[in-house]
Amino acid sequence: MTKGEHTRKRILEAAAPIFNQRGYDGSSLSDLMEATGLKKGGIYRHFSSKQELAAEAFDYAWTAWQARVFRLDEKASSIDTLKQLIANFVKYRSSVPGGCPLLNTAVDADDGNSVLRTRAAAALRSWLGQVQSIIEQAKERGETRRAVDSGMVATLIVASLEGALMMSRLQRSDEPLRRIQSHLNGYLEDELMG
Amino acid sequence: MTKGEHTRKRILEAAAPIFNQRGYDGSSLSDLMEATGLKKGGIYRHFSSKQELAAEAFDYAWTAWQARVFRLDEKASSIDTLKQLIANFVKYRSSVPGGCPLLNTAVDADDGNSVLRTRAAAALRSWLGQVQSIIEQAKERGETRRAVDSGMVATLIVASLEGALMMSRLQRSDEPLRRIQSHLNGYLEDELMG
Repeated sequence: MTKGEHTRKRILEAAAPIFNQRGYDGSSLSDLMEATGLKKGGIYRHFSSKQELAAEAFDYAWTAWQARVFRLDEKASSIDTLKQLIANFVKYRSSVPGGCPLLNTAVDADDGNSVLRTRAAAALRSWLGQVQSIIEQAKERGETRRAVDSGMVATLIVASLEGALMMSRLQRSDEPLRRIQSHLNGYLEDELMG
Repeated sequence: MTKGEHTRKRILEAAAPIFNQRGYDGSSLSDLMEATGLKKGGIYRHFSSKQELAAEAFDYAWTAWQARVFRLDEKASSIDTLKQLIANFVKYRSSVPGGCPLLNTAVDADDGNSVLRTRAAAALRSWLGQVQSIIEQAKERGETRRAVDSGMVATLIVASLEGALMMSRLQRSDEPLRRIQSHLNGYLEDELMG
C-alpha cells in the first residue's frame, strides 16, 4: 500500500462511523477533520467531494458489515447456514458504530442524494442475492420443498431483520431482534423443510 | 381555533414533510421559511427551538399516519382487522411525503437527538401496543390458538413492514411490501388460527 492509499484508508475508517451515526447532512467538515486529524485540504486531496467521501465511506462500512454477517462456516445444511447468517446479524448488526449502514443510508438517501442511494440499492441487491443463492442451493440439494420461493424468503429475512434492528436500537433492547431470530429459525424449519 | 393556533398548525403541516424527507440536520431554517412562507421570527414565535418544532412536526406526521393505518372497519374477526391494518400500511405507508415518520425519525435520532428519540420510541410503543391488543382480543374471542404470543406477533408485523418499506422505497418497487403482506396474511391464517 502506498502512503496515499494508506491515508485514504485511514480517512475512510474515521469517516465511516461519522456518516453512519450522523447521516450525510449531519456530518460536518469539522466533524470529519476532527475524526481524521486532517485539515480540509488533507481530506479533499483524496476525495473529490463530500459526496464521494460519503459514498466511499458507505462502501467501506458495508464491506466490513458483509465480512462479519457473511462469515459462514461449512455447515451440514444450507438451512443451518441461513440460521448462522441470521445469528451473525443479531450478534454484529453494526460493523461501524451507528447500526446497519444499509438501513441508515437507505433512509438517509431515499428522498435525495442519488449517489448514496445508488450505493445503498446495490448493497441491498447484493445482500438479497446472496441470501437467495443460499436458498437456491438448499433447493438444489433437496433440503427444502421444491415450491419454496427463494425471493420471498430472502425478502422476509432481510426486511424483518432490518426492521427489528430499527426497533432494537430505538428501544435499546435486544428483544425485537431475538424475537425475529426465533421466528425466522422456526419459519426456516417449518416452511422450507416441512 | 385562535389565529395563533391556526398559524401553529400551518407551520407543522409545512414543516412535517421537510423533516420527514430531509431529516433533522438536513432541514435548514431557509427550507422551513420557504415551506411556511414565514420569516424566522414568525416560526419561532410559535416554537421555542428547532428541536421543539421537529418534535411537534413528528407528532403531527405520526398522528396523520395513525389516522390512515388504523382506519379499521368493523370486521367479522380480529384476524381480518389485522389484515386490513397490514393492507393499510402497504397502501398508505407515508402520511406525509418521505415514508414512515417512525422509521425515518428512529434512524435519524437513534444515535443523538434525545427529544426526537423519545417521541419515536413512544410512537413505536403505541403502535406495538395497538397491534398487540387486537391480537389479545382475538385470543379472548377464541379466534386464535391460546398459545399465541401477542408480543411476538406484533413485533413480527411491525419489524417486517418497516423493513419492507425501507426496501420498497430504495428499490422504488412495491414488491417487497407485497411479499411481506402476503407472508403476514399467510402467517396469521396458519400460525394464529392453525
